[in-house]
Amino acid sequence: MKKDREAAKNVKKLFGKQVRKRRVELGFSQEQLAFESGLHRNYIGSVERGERNISLENIYILAKALKYSPKDLLL
Amino acid sequence: MKKDREAAKNVKKLFGKQVRKRRVELGFSQEQLAFESGLHRNYIGSVERGERNISLENIYILAKALKYSPKDLLL
Repeated sequence: MKKDREAAKNVKKLFGKQVRKRRVELGFSQEQLAFESGLHRNYIGSVERGERNISLENIYILAKALKYSPKDLLL
Repeated sequence: MKKDREAAKNVKKLFGKQVRKRRVELGFSQEQLAFESGLHRNYIGSVERGERNISLENIYILAKALKYSPKDLLL
């Protein structure tokens, strides 16, 4: 169980990497993604750095703005 | 953007349904899933009812306990 909790930390990093990769793929700046999603630019930055334990709703909102399905953001 | 926020509410319901479906598939009770995941039984119940805006870490922890990959819980 402890191991699972540690692995869970890693999932934030991986998620952030996926967001950044997809954003760059679309040619969006963090500002543009913030505008498209309605989330704050600083929030986007911290998600991409893997610092945020992002919620299901925000995963969905971010995926929409990235023209992705939510599952595409999870590895 | 407002429409996206409304659709995001729905995602909690869909997520909860997926969790319940998979739990039943495995023949787990909510108590067993609570034990396997280290999450509280009441929390599991509210996730299944679509009441929780579950975080990425807990999605991961729940998926592990359900012998699933996190993306299998997202539709």
